[in-house]
Amino acid sequence: MRAARFYDRKDIRIEDIPEPQLLPGTVAIDVAWCGICGTDLHEYLEGPIFVPPTGHPHPISGESAPVTMGHEFSGTITALGEGVDDLSIGQNVVVEPYIIADDVDTSPGQSYQLSKDMNFIGLGGRGGGLAEKIVVQRRWVHPIGDIPLDQAALIEPLSVAHHAVTRSGAQAGQVAIVGGAGPIGLLTAAVLKAQGMRVYVSELSEARKAMALSTGVADEVLDPREVDVAEAVRERTDGTGADVGFECSSAPVVLDMLLDATRPGGVIVNVSIWGHKPEVDMPKLVLKEIDLRGTIGYSGDHPATIALAESGRIDLSSFITARIGLDELIPGGFDELIDNNEQHVKIIVDPRA
Amino acid sequence: MRAARFYDRKDIRIEDIPEPQLLPGTVAIDVAWCGICGTDLHEYLEGPIFVPPTGHPHPISGESAPVTMGHEFSGTITALGEGVDDLSIGQNVVVEPYIIADDVDTSPGQSYQLSKDMNFIGLGGRGGGLAEKIVVQRRWVHPIGDIPLDQAALIEPLSVAHHAVTRSGAQAGQVAIVGGAGPIGLLTAAVLKAQGMRVYVSELSEARKAMALSTGVADEVLDPREVDVAEAVRERTDGTGADVGFECSSAPVVLDMLLDATRPGGVIVNVSIWGHKPEVDMPKLVLKEIDLRGTIGYSGDHPATIALAESGRIDLSSFITARIGLDELIPGGFDELIDNNEQHVKIIVDPRA
Ligand SMILES: [Zn+2]
Ligand SMILES: [Zn+2]
Repeated sequence: MRAARFYDRKDIRIEDIPEPQLLPGTVAIDVAWCGICGTDLHEYLEGPIFVPPTGHPHPISGESAPVTMGHEFSGTITALGEGVDDLSIGQNVVVEPYIIADDVDTSPGQSYQLSKDMNFIGLGGRGGGLAEKIVVQRRWVHPIGDIPLDQAALIEPLSVAHHAVTRSGAQAGQVAIVGGAGPIGLLTAAVLKAQGMRVYVSELSEARKAMALSTGVADEVLDPREVDVAEAVRERTDGTGADVGFECSSAPVVLDMLLDATRPGGVIVNVSIWGHKPEVDMPKLVLKEIDLRGTIGYSGDHPATIALAESGRIDLSSFITARIGLDELIPGGFDELIDNNEQHVKIIVDPRA
Repeated sequence: MRAARFYDRKDIRIEDIPEPQLLPGTVAIDVAWCGICGTDLHEYLEGPIFVPPTGHPHPISGESAPVTMGHEFSGTITALGEGVDDLSIGQNVVVEPYIIADDVDTSPGQSYQLSKDMNFIGLGGRGGGLAEKIVVQRRWVHPIGDIPLDQAALIEPLSVAHHAVTRSGAQAGQVAIVGGAGPIGLLTAAVLKAQGMRVYVSELSEARKAMALSTGVADEVLDPREVDVAEAVRERTDGTGADVGFECSSAPVVLDMLLDATRPGGVIVNVSIWGHKPEVDMPKLVLKEIDLRGTIGYSGDHPATIALAESGRIDLSSFITARIGLDELIPGGFDELIDNNEQHVKIIVDPRA
């Protein structure tokens, strides 16, 4: 079968590899669509980061580069391994793409994504969504009901956003400020809006500002070149500030703005990935008793995220900005995201086309 | 009456001023003992910070320098203003030294310390504990039962520690790492220990290490020159890390250590005051889903703090390292803290001596 495999920085190859084997307790899936993620791009430009370098096998998967890429994918079940009796062939599903030790408890309420040596399918081994087929452990498979397969490729990043919103403790009727309207900022805003929050989005890029408005995820977009965003948020909240803030930009100036825009006693969730240690306005965090919370991946979020997409309260199709085949992955996917990043939310790939 | 008044940086004068007037709803107190706080020292060396500079009256108190200093004090009630019928003359009390707008709700459960323009008695006006007498609003007066008046001067900083521990959500049986064994680090450790946590303290200074052990607030003191503190904490917690961490040093390297020593999903409370914006290891905060929480002052903590001191589970006398009269305030108080800071936890002042 055809697969996109990461060999090294700037060296991703489309090649023919053997099909994965069905084992007891696993599920075989024909991949329908797979999204390209900022993490994938990061790996392409600066990796290997999550990918175990050649000769340094991951302690759980036992694999190292080359590995098949793609962790945001949907597909259809083609076969069930021995002992799997609660799914059926032909069912459409998504995969929660974790590589986690077999003895880690992954039942609801467990923060299993924080377990030792956690990595992701499509980065740390065990195949990936940028291939025609994949076989995964039963526990990572989630049926998606009527959600179209193309939209379902966005369930994984939407689960990241869902987990971030859950971490914030935000309640319906509260006010949120989202710093940055890239893919994860937009999806975080989408979850907030679907759950009944009032959502302000801070963004500079014209394309992203337009996307935040056309998708309906922002009640208002605030441009820091035009207004003092924190002051504007206070003006719209009787002088108080937002209840919750979300850092989705990896820019220190945005984190500063959030510490200013969030009310005393409020919560800020950091959803972005930092490549360095930023300066943080600790004096403000202290004097306002703000909680600054990390969030990574998801744990137990997929069922609620799927229900949210199925309910129609989030229109995932509005975030798909291009569809390509696997042969176009580098020019139409990675290079396109490098050249025209702000024009895109999610490029999805059909590994059979 | 005699009072220590802040005029400007390095200009604190002991002088005679008129006695404060008893008004309806207020309580007159003869001050017994008043502690000198790191905040006072900061004000003396680098202020005015909390003190409203001359000509710039505080929006609530209406006062500016010179102001009477001292916010950590105990005393005895000498008179009750009209309408105050739930206290009695001769009762020993401490004061929760807030300057907060009259219309702010200060009932239990309210984070009234986060209200607009909050300041402290003894810094922002309304008298202070470094004077023979003070008159304060009824709502800030807390009876102390049998607690000796000298020890009761430490109820205020102990309330800061109590609030920090409450902010952490730590439970009995959990493991805490306290970064820094200055006055607030020691009192934080004392509250943790009294509430049944296992407490590790990180500290460099020999004098402070000795104090953390002699007062019994630390189960073990870890010296970062001798061990990798985070690694040592993990070794003592089955490889997991501490449940809660407390930043009590204002040193970036200590905050880094806490982010390393605290377990995934753990909580770090920042109890120290930062004069600048430190670099924070956000990548670690994100990957471990740590909550970094600010804490300032206290709100509704005094009754529980007083009960803790009264129970005998914390021996406040062990933290008193000198007793001086008001005339000795500069040489025996401020200058002594500058010259021999690590030898002291709390110097208390008798304003009548
Ligand atoms: Zn992703
Ligand atoms: Zn103090």
